[in-house]
Amino acid sequence: MAPPAAPPYDYERDPSAIYRQSFSIVRSEAALGALPDAMQAVAIRLIHSCGMVDILDDLTWSENVVERAGAAFSNGATVLADVEMVANGIIKRLLPRNNAVVCTLNENDVPELAKRLGTTRSAAAVEHWLEHLDGAIVAVGNAPTALFHLLEEVAKGAPKPAVILGFPVGFVGAAESKQALIENPFGIPFLTIRGRRGGSAMAAAAVNALAAGLPEDTA
Amino acid sequence: MAPPAAPPYDYERDPSAIYRQSFSIVRSEAALGALPDAMQAVAIRLIHSCGMVDILDDLTWSENVVERAGAAFSNGATVLADVEMVANGIIKRLLPRNNAVVCTLNENDVPELAKRLGTTRSAAAVEHWLEHLDGAIVAVGNAPTALFHLLEEVAKGAPKPAVILGFPVGFVGAAESKQALIENPFGIPFLTIRGRRGGSAMAAAAVNALAAGLPEDTA
Repeated sequence: MAPPAAPPYDYERDPSAIYRQSFSIVRSEAALGALPDAMQAVAIRLIHSCGMVDILDDLTWSENVVERAGAAFSNGATVLADVEMVANGIIKRLLPRNNAVVCTLNENDVPELAKRLGTTRSAAAVEHWLEHLDGAIVAVGNAPTALFHLLEEVAKGAPKPAVILGFPVGFVGAAESKQALIENPFGIPFLTIRGRRGGSAMAAAAVNALAAGLPEDTA
Repeated sequence: MAPPAAPPYDYERDPSAIYRQSFSIVRSEAALGALPDAMQAVAIRLIHSCGMVDILDDLTWSENVVERAGAAFSNGATVLADVEMVANGIIKRLLPRNNAVVCTLNENDVPELAKRLGTTRSAAAVEHWLEHLDGAIVAVGNAPTALFHLLEEVAKGAPKPAVILGFPVGFVGAAESKQALIENPFGIPFLTIRGRRGGSAMAAAAVNALAAGLPEDTA
């Protein structure tokens, strides 16, 4: 790292060069060779989103997730996000069919629905996913309760999403909800990160990677 | 961690209990005693946002940042965010003066401005901060170039923000831009995390903590 000084600073200003150098550093530091080909772009984009190469140790996925997500995007699948931050992190121009991105967390009746159901607003908002759920891309970047609630709805007969990208973060329920996803008995393809780490940026990066790979990678 | 099973799952559904347990785990695992009192709520909220207790090792701040940010919020300071994800993560009801939250990244002329200036869109968007900058709360959660550009603008005579919360993330320029913030010769109070980690969730958590502390902490 160059010693910082007062402005003007010496730093890379070209967006293409920034992407290229970032991906190059990730490739040089991460053990990507151990991954299936289809997962490499996904792993690079996830690592790029958080600055942590070692998330590779916790990354977990079902064998078919890249293929299933790709097919779903091509079919025009809706993307369901648990929070607006995930929806905002999705790069809309990368979605192949101008796929809708839906976040129901701030719908008017969600606070009251949460009270009635005795759960969080994030979980209650999942009730409004049902009409979009069949074949959808689900991206959870914040709330363990949303992921748990979704799996419970599927158990009760709700339509199955095409894939679930599970990145709840934090200390209460995050690791457990992702473990439940990994062990989901419904055969729903998934991509997730074991443990406490996760977040909206990773969930959005997963959507972007599965939709389009690494189009900025012009090296 | 309880062994996961098929639904229904056994998990905490009460939002207050989730916050309480989260903060309690953070307090039990993080060496908060080493922090000044004023920084403890900030550190708890930051750790809570990312699920990583060890960010404490990299957290760096100027002595006066909590006091200065508090005064700025009370004065009705505008919050300037580099990306929409940061703006979305700010809990508006926690802002004491219904403070405006502004993100200029998606203004129409930003792509063309970026080309003209030979920099990223994130950096070009900072040009539109100038009218709001005097006494503002700046929260950078994504782009090193935005943070560098802001410091360069101040060097050229732009008004000084009240505080800069610097959380750019990634492999190219993130560590360097945060080091430049730490060493800023303008006396601007700051809060930042050394190294590659950071992100929108942390930047938003910093804003929320400095605006309101831990109002969910009812333990």
